[in-house]
Amino acid sequence: MELITTVSAMQSISRKSGAAGKSIGFVPTMGFLHEGHLSLIKLARRRADVVVVSIFVNPRQFGPNEDLDRYPRDFERDKALCEVCGADFLFFPPVEEMYVSDASVFVDESELSAGLCGSSRDGHFRGVLTVVAKLFNMVDPQVAVFGQKDAQQAAVIKRMVRDLNFPIEIIVAPIVREADGLAMSSRNTFLKPEERQQALWLNKSLLLAESMVKNGENGGGAVESAMRKLLAENAPGVDLEYIAVVDSTSLKPQDTIVAGTLIALAARVGNTRLIDNIVVEM
Amino acid sequence: MELITTVSAMQSISRKSGAAGKSIGFVPTMGFLHEGHLSLIKLARRRADVVVVSIFVNPRQFGPNEDLDRYPRDFERDKALCEVCGADFLFFPPVEEMYVSDASVFVDESELSAGLCGSSRDGHFRGVLTVVAKLFNMVDPQVAVFGQKDAQQAAVIKRMVRDLNFPIEIIVAPIVREADGLAMSSRNTFLKPEERQQALWLNKSLLLAESMVKNGENGGGAVESAMRKLLAENAPGVDLEYIAVVDSTSLKPQDTIVAGTLIALAARVGNTRLIDNIVVEM
Repeated sequence: MELITTVSAMQSISRKSGAAGKSIGFVPTMGFLHEGHLSLIKLARRRADVVVVSIFVNPRQFGPNEDLDRYPRDFERDKALCEVCGADFLFFPPVEEMYVSDASVFVDESELSAGLCGSSRDGHFRGVLTVVAKLFNMVDPQVAVFGQKDAQQAAVIKRMVRDLNFPIEIIVAPIVREADGLAMSSRNTFLKPEERQQALWLNKSLLLAESMVKNGENGGGAVESAMRKLLAENAPGVDLEYIAVVDSTSLKPQDTIVAGTLIALAARVGNTRLIDNIVVEM
Repeated sequence: MELITTVSAMQSISRKSGAAGKSIGFVPTMGFLHEGHLSLIKLARRRADVVVVSIFVNPRQFGPNEDLDRYPRDFERDKALCEVCGADFLFFPPVEEMYVSDASVFVDESELSAGLCGSSRDGHFRGVLTVVAKLFNMVDPQVAVFGQKDAQQAAVIKRMVRDLNFPIEIIVAPIVREADGLAMSSRNTFLKPEERQQALWLNKSLLLAESMVKNGENGGGAVESAMRKLLAENAPGVDLEYIAVVDSTSLKPQDTIVAGTLIALAARVGNTRLIDNIVVEM
């Protein structure tokens, strides 16, 4: 595995791969890799000739009161994990290589990014789309893999690929969970033991939603109420930000749950913001 | 020359050219081609293995009160001219191929696009950048050629290429003028004979600026005043929108004119909006 730290070196590798007829599979990450990330890298490995993983904690997708400064990092461990999972190139640019000081062009989305996490994270998806567009232009992949854990991000990126005509196939890989059901997240490292116990109720509320749907309940409002009740009664330490019952592509609210409906939530547990979701099967 | 009307056909051609190690030179236009456009195509011909010209009158860069409906078109003539100038592919997508009805992703720029034409054409550069980003992702050129006549557009597109890391070299080709000095524009066709005589004073005011600078005047304000005076005294039919004395890369106002300073103007003559500019040599 080769470590790349400049845009020009990355673009040169992309060009050479293209000229050699080799496809590139790309996994953009913010590092502090967990099994969820590794599943994305392994998926890219199966789908492309050359696998590029990027690690870049993107300042522009963090709000002024968010956790950019304390976002967890462990480069040496990440590097070893990328190598083990079969990455060919680890792209790890410093911030000043990614953004010139007077950068003034951005990519934004006006529909899917407004609700859910977008309601509380002003500018977040603009930051995400801008950096992902940049990374796409640096890596020039045929396939890029994102995680379903960030369901809204995946939907917004798919929309960008469609609307800006990036010739890239977006693959969204399933959520990987800890043994106790908690969705894997780099931010789980922040949770104190008692907070972690509280956080488990997020997944439990989604499992409740799933079982209600399986038993014939298809009312979005009824399911949301039951989830809220479960959390209120069992998890006082969970500060719920939203529960959304929406179409998984358009992210438009759905009164009636159907196959493919996304049930997503965000909550704060202690100082840690967590998200989780399920896509309903029927 | 081959006519292409779908995005998928265009992207397939780009892919094949890339795999064959052939570079693509790209000239995006809105059609109704004149000598200015043809100079861009010829330049692309000298710089790349494969030349793609696009013709697309982009609705999203016209304001609600602008001239989208009456923008001049002559496809058969354009096609013949592209062929004569050595284009290999003419990309001529219908609007519905370019934009899905619920498109919600856009590219925008916050500094260079605010002044000059951006002051009066709200959303214009967002429309330009979004369609150019789309076209870049469809055509995947190594080189793209734009005209200096649209000086602000060229600066904003260069900024986009820099900030979003498109691996594309942007070439800006000099303004081509009619024998009487009028900058070539598809919109010149709208000018009545007496309007055209008035419009000539735009270039004359720029020539005055040039000669003042050549004679040692380097004050932006003094040059602008002299230009305004010349137009006021000789061209009552010219409704001046702005004269800008700015750095040609950052488009920031310059009190002192130096080599590379852009002197740009926009005016309405009858119902026709015209722009023109010079870059100062010293």
